[in-house]
Amino acid sequence: MTLDRAHAEALDAADPLAAFRDRFIVADDGVIYLDGNSLGRLPADTPARIDDVVRRQWGTRLIRSWSEGWMDVPLEVGDRLGEALLGARRGETVVCDNVTLNIFKVLHAALGLRPTRTTIVVHRGEFPTDRYVAAEAAAQRGASISWVGPMDPDSVEVDPISPGSVAAAMHDDVAVVLLSVVDYRTAALVDVAAITRVVHDAGAVMVWDCSHAVGSVPLALADVDADLAIGCTYKYVNGGPGAPAFIWANSRLHDQLHNPVPGWMGHSDVFAMGPGYDPAPGVRRFMTGTPSAVALAAVDVGVGLLAEAGMTAVREKSIALTSYAVELVDGWLADLGVTLASPREPHLRGSHVTVRHPDAQALTQALTDRGVIPDFRHPDGIRIGLAPLTTRFADVHDGLLALRTLLEALQR
Amino acid sequence: MTLDRAHAEALDAADPLAAFRDRFIVADDGVIYLDGNSLGRLPADTPARIDDVVRRQWGTRLIRSWSEGWMDVPLEVGDRLGEALLGARRGETVVCDNVTLNIFKVLHAALGLRPTRTTIVVHRGEFPTDRYVAAEAAAQRGASISWVGPMDPDSVEVDPISPGSVAAAMHDDVAVVLLSVVDYRTAALVDVAAITRVVHDAGAVMVWDCSHAVGSVPLALADVDADLAIGCTYKYVNGGPGAPAFIWANSRLHDQLHNPVPGWMGHSDVFAMGPGYDPAPGVRRFMTGTPSAVALAAVDVGVGLLAEAGMTAVREKSIALTSYAVELVDGWLADLGVTLASPREPHLRGSHVTVRHPDAQALTQALTDRGVIPDFRHPDGIRIGLAPLTTRFADVHDGLLALRTLLEALQR
Repeated sequence: MTLDRAHAEALDAADPLAAFRDRFIVADDGVIYLDGNSLGRLPADTPARIDDVVRRQWGTRLIRSWSEGWMDVPLEVGDRLGEALLGARRGETVVCDNVTLNIFKVLHAALGLRPTRTTIVVHRGEFPTDRYVAAEAAAQRGASISWVGPMDPDSVEVDPISPGSVAAAMHDDVAVVLLSVVDYRTAALVDVAAITRVVHDAGAVMVWDCSHAVGSVPLALADVDADLAIGCTYKYVNGGPGAPAFIWANSRLHDQLHNPVPGWMGHSDVFAMGPGYDPAPGVRRFMTGTPSAVALAAVDVGVGLLAEAGMTAVREKSIALTSYAVELVDGWLADLGVTLASPREPHLRGSHVTVRHPDAQALTQALTDRGVIPDFRHPDGIRIGLAPLTTRFADVHDGLLALRTLLEALQR
Repeated sequence: MTLDRAHAEALDAADPLAAFRDRFIVADDGVIYLDGNSLGRLPADTPARIDDVVRRQWGTRLIRSWSEGWMDVPLEVGDRLGEALLGARRGETVVCDNVTLNIFKVLHAALGLRPTRTTIVVHRGEFPTDRYVAAEAAAQRGASISWVGPMDPDSVEVDPISPGSVAAAMHDDVAVVLLSVVDYRTAALVDVAAITRVVHDAGAVMVWDCSHAVGSVPLALADVDADLAIGCTYKYVNGGPGAPAFIWANSRLHDQLHNPVPGWMGHSDVFAMGPGYDPAPGVRRFMTGTPSAVALAAVDVGVGLLAEAGMTAVREKSIALTSYAVELVDGWLADLGVTLASPREPHLRGSHVTVRHPDAQALTQALTDRGVIPDFRHPDGIRIGLAPLTTRFADVHDGLLALRTLLEALQR
């Protein structure tokens, strides 16, 4: 019977990525971590990599480290991330700043590509920062937002954005479409290729937020010929709390992209310090100020682990994990008032599973108190994040059993 | 005779801050580091603080660390930095993002305070990022830049900006004045109080870039009633490569300040994720995306050391160091074609001394090859950075003697 723990153990025993869990530091505290989609675990190699940057590169080499490598790290880590996780060509990816700032830069750059158009299309249920920044960028340029998607942005039960719904929102004034590859609430995964085509057919620029996809869903941004993308590295990429984000820019656009925050690190000649700003060729122009060498080293370790595992295997494991979670929700939780908010079809899902319950917030707290850590999403969602490199099938079993036990106690 | 090494050693023996050098990790490699104004040294406590954030807070506490402290660290470290180094009131300082991004946010916020005015006054020789961002911000709002200062922004020989020169640049359309407290080329230190008064008398907003001052020159931003300030923490604050920068905002302005990059971390209710952006009260509204817990811990260590030393003692040592360097330049280097670019009066100087020589670039490289590390500034400047907590008088002696030896060899 698939609800037995023995079944979970058998799935773990047969998991080709099972050994990757040992490449992370996992405390011996019995915690069942189901929130790798908020903050990924600590890779075992990261403390030593950070310590080398701190003690040797900073402490001993001092300022010389900038010319001994630090200047190029944002693009080097960018290229490794882009190749392994985004389907990018070399020179199209830079790791810098945070997601909010990168959305801001990229949206302005995208608007600059369509100077006669004044509409930005955004999902009404998009991650808050994306919506706030889009609204602000629109206001700054006299543009306006056209919202797509369901009316209630606070609901965790939302229809995924289909190519048809995007097509219906397109018109001659649409300059840019900003959408997430994976919805942060439901894990709904959109058809990146088809939506990009729809947007291009309308003459608009496609910007993808890959935050909840990168490192769990293989991306092929160059192949689908998207325009710009951004995303974070502290979730499935395991880059650490507040790790720098990335920007991907299709190389066919590089010469035309204008960074609205022109800093010295994005200048064509960083140390010339001349009177005017001359953007660096390529994606480097999206850099602003001095990047953190320490933070970039941690991102590099996370990228390396995913590259070693390979995104095909990562996606297979992700689908197996989320499918198993859905089975347990159906078998254990559906009769206790829990409903599935995530898509049932594996190929329409990212790597978390969200369930709904009126007491979601209290349940999340009670689970956390018992060492089972999912996260809560307003108003009634419990997100169960399943990180392919670190989450075991037994964790899914034990975590959802703990939820069932809590719910049964509630019913009594 | 003051040029003897024994004199330098006597100065070190009498230095009340001498023991602070042992609070930093200094490699036993004979390097004479005269570039603490570019990248400050590594505090001895920093590796362990970082390791605790990485291994315990990230690795073991995982996502729980956000509610166990990380959310408040940008403001907590900001308050400690503000109180010890800026003369700030509590709640006026936040550590986030980088200097470029903070200038961008603060300049737009400042322009928003004077919506009917359209001129930004900037020093023509200002640090490049400041000029690039100011020019871009002006373009974005239909404003224009009015440059003050000498005509040649590439020269390292520049007159300091006086209150009179700022007054002469003021008119009814000036919305904002952006100036550095300490010039990055010459270390010229301006009269912050007098210039702020001149700017306020003209009804404009005063934005101070404290990057080359913070941690070496005591600031009294609240007392002089400045409006906004930004600065970096990787120079005299010893926060590490690419450490996050700070924003200071006078509390009398908080309710009126608009962040042009509204991210979820600057929202009044970070996890509400509501439909619209509602800025947090106070300086927190200048936050954008997720801050790096690792990087903030390193900043905190650096701030703590300066707070312990006290800025009065730090300034006294700084003046003694730069005065000693000027003596050696006069005594050893003036007859070898070296001229002083920094102000001769100690109270008009920050904590570096810049000398000029036609072969400055080659000399800087030759010094670096010999383990003496100053830095080069285009076209003919050698900056000698003197960090009060870590630079010894003997370092100044040995470093400038090495330069004399090189110059003597050149003359033969």
